[in-house]
Amino acid sequence: MTTLADRAATAVDGARQWSRLMEMAQIGSIAGGGVNRACLTPLDRDARRRLMAWAQAAGATVTIDDAANLWLRREGSDPAAAPVLTGSHMDSQPEGGRFDGIYGVIAGLEVLEAMHAAGLRTRRAIEVVAWTNEEGGRFAPGCMGSMAWSGTRRLADFADARDPEGIRFEDALSAHLAAEADVPRRPLVSAPRPAAYVEAHIEQGPLLEAAGEDIGVVTGIQGSRWYTVTITGETAHAGTTPLKLRRDAVQDMVRAITALNALMDDPTDVLRFTVGRVEVAPNAPNSVANRARFTIDFRHPDGAVLAARGDAVADAIRAALRGTTAEVQETSHALPNVFEPTVVDAIERAAASLGLRHRRMPSGAGHDAQFVAPLCPSGMIFVPCRGGISHNPAEYASPDQLAAGTRVLATTLADLAAA
Amino acid sequence: MTTLADRAATAVDGARQWSRLMEMAQIGSIAGGGVNRACLTPLDRDARRRLMAWAQAAGATVTIDDAANLWLRREGSDPAAAPVLTGSHMDSQPEGGRFDGIYGVIAGLEVLEAMHAAGLRTRRAIEVVAWTNEEGGRFAPGCMGSMAWSGTRRLADFADARDPEGIRFEDALSAHLAAEADVPRRPLVSAPRPAAYVEAHIEQGPLLEAAGEDIGVVTGIQGSRWYTVTITGETAHAGTTPLKLRRDAVQDMVRAITALNALMDDPTDVLRFTVGRVEVAPNAPNSVANRARFTIDFRHPDGAVLAARGDAVADAIRAALRGTTAEVQETSHALPNVFEPTVVDAIERAAASLGLRHRRMPSGAGHDAQFVAPLCPSGMIFVPCRGGISHNPAEYASPDQLAAGTRVLATTLADLAAA
Repeated sequence: MTTLADRAATAVDGARQWSRLMEMAQIGSIAGGGVNRACLTPLDRDARRRLMAWAQAAGATVTIDDAANLWLRREGSDPAAAPVLTGSHMDSQPEGGRFDGIYGVIAGLEVLEAMHAAGLRTRRAIEVVAWTNEEGGRFAPGCMGSMAWSGTRRLADFADARDPEGIRFEDALSAHLAAEADVPRRPLVSAPRPAAYVEAHIEQGPLLEAAGEDIGVVTGIQGSRWYTVTITGETAHAGTTPLKLRRDAVQDMVRAITALNALMDDPTDVLRFTVGRVEVAPNAPNSVANRARFTIDFRHPDGAVLAARGDAVADAIRAALRGTTAEVQETSHALPNVFEPTVVDAIERAAASLGLRHRRMPSGAGHDAQFVAPLCPSGMIFVPCRGGISHNPAEYASPDQLAAGTRVLATTLADLAAA
Repeated sequence: MTTLADRAATAVDGARQWSRLMEMAQIGSIAGGGVNRACLTPLDRDARRRLMAWAQAAGATVTIDDAANLWLRREGSDPAAAPVLTGSHMDSQPEGGRFDGIYGVIAGLEVLEAMHAAGLRTRRAIEVVAWTNEEGGRFAPGCMGSMAWSGTRRLADFADARDPEGIRFEDALSAHLAAEADVPRRPLVSAPRPAAYVEAHIEQGPLLEAAGEDIGVVTGIQGSRWYTVTITGETAHAGTTPLKLRRDAVQDMVRAITALNALMDDPTDVLRFTVGRVEVAPNAPNSVANRARFTIDFRHPDGAVLAARGDAVADAIRAALRGTTAEVQETSHALPNVFEPTVVDAIERAAASLGLRHRRMPSGAGHDAQFVAPLCPSGMIFVPCRGGISHNPAEYASPDQLAAGTRVLATTLADLAAA
């Protein structure tokens, strides 16, 4: 017996999906095979227009909301039932790749096209959403579209964000909506809530490739805490000042990072701890530094670990110092997301039924899904990317890897849309 | 019985010296009580003109050489005898103090004025030299004047050094010499060799003040080795990349510095080891760094220690790395200077005879004396400076501290000029 879900997966056309992705990659293409397509630019508008045309040809209806999130809806047999949602984003990093974000949108489109071609009808409608400004590369913060839609933040909160040229987000948004005035508008509300949300994405990490696996069944998005640490000592002549009399900011930074490495030690290698930015003053070879500033990016999927170790950061740093002082500022604190079993289990079943090698894993990176998850059962499907490289023109996933992810998406959506 | 040396020391006028120093400090004065007087600028010329006028009024003859080193000569009773030399430099750091360098020149002038006022006559002539461009703040490297005079380097080697505005050293030097065409020229040769060289200077370190001592009898200038270390790893996403799979340049820099701290450990606290400059790329909070570059400034008065530990630097770094590679480049290597007992003993006798608290000590900083020392018995007299602070507008030594140093200088010069 062939189920609707099986038929949807079978109808997925990996070659068509790859061709759509390569066509999108031409819009904002940069050297090295990458993409620079910032949100709400003419390039973004070109890409959205292309997407709308494909969706309409596949029988979907297209709407846009006040945050310029773009919605492609394939009606179900029960129009009153809450839809099942999928999607991701179409904007890229300034020196981004061809798959981050856009893959999840094109995969959703491919499911619509596959169902259209195969004449399949689900009970619930399936909606594909392209969230506005996930990357935050032009306007900070990222995930504005999904935050505004989910009510995490008000759209008006973002009005005064400016791009590097000084253009306000609100003005860029108004201009975009005016240019898209022929697209029917839908309200920026998340009610009634969708039945479920499933986002397909490249892993942006090396685990699946290293393990030879096809699919990551994402169990949640790990929480993160960011800090900026400023160590203040005293400058002194490198030739004349005895080491015992120094208050050396570089040396105390080294001691602080060493202490943090001990605090953050994790034999299971799930914890992520990164010192990525370091700045020293006066930064002269023959002057003892009077200031060293560094950042901490600490992530973990378990809220208890995130709380306990994060709360211990400042004390660990201060205990390591010899003679300097440290200011420890927490600049960001995001709680972990744990996805509901409804969707996680459905994705895992889909991968298993398709004979794909898969593992459960948390997402290390942030995604729009984290803002949707509080509203409805949500999940993510990861596909491997070469060398774990992302946010880089070298980002790559093969046509077959992407097609496998989309077959899992099709199966999962059909499954959830039948419920 | 009062010796010539006693009478010279007694004739030193601490108030006159202080007033000369404060007058010089007006030429290029900057906020915070500091001085910015770069070499071969109109400010430098003003200061030199002032110096020449004072010297001539004290009966000295003034000459200038091809490197614009300025020479003030007080004739001895035996004009054929090799002169005794003293001096230092008149240029300052860009944000310098009122004493670094200029003190040694004004102290030498004060000895000439004191002897002139007291009608004292030494057997050997006494010459005060103001070396060109010791600081290297406008044209790199520093100590051009003393290096060219001593034959350490050829003057022509410096011709193409450029200041931040692109002016060539040779052009600045020619313009200066043309403007000073009325000053008699002397050849830029160190033959016949002086009988001795004594340079007075602020300590630029905290030891004398901390010990409550008046005079540092400098036994030599410690050697130094400078390195630039470049650690190359691989950038990666801070949220997704497990720590075990990273090649993190910041973490390996921390490991390398920790290993160097062990290599450079010195319970006697004579060794100087400084990491003063750190640069990281891409230097983003959520990216594992693929490059970390840092400098090493390593100094020691003992050539054997300098050789053994310096030669072990690259291996210590490489043994500390986990997954990255390091390029270790030695950018400078200066052997230690050990001053001859003739002058060191004379300075120590002078301090003792004047009842001043003194200690023998190496110089942590480099000075013109290190380029003179290979040619004739040399030595330096250090006076305390507040908090060890130098290369800073806050640099300070009191009138009494400076006068004590100049009395030691007068005694030493009279002693050496009698021999």
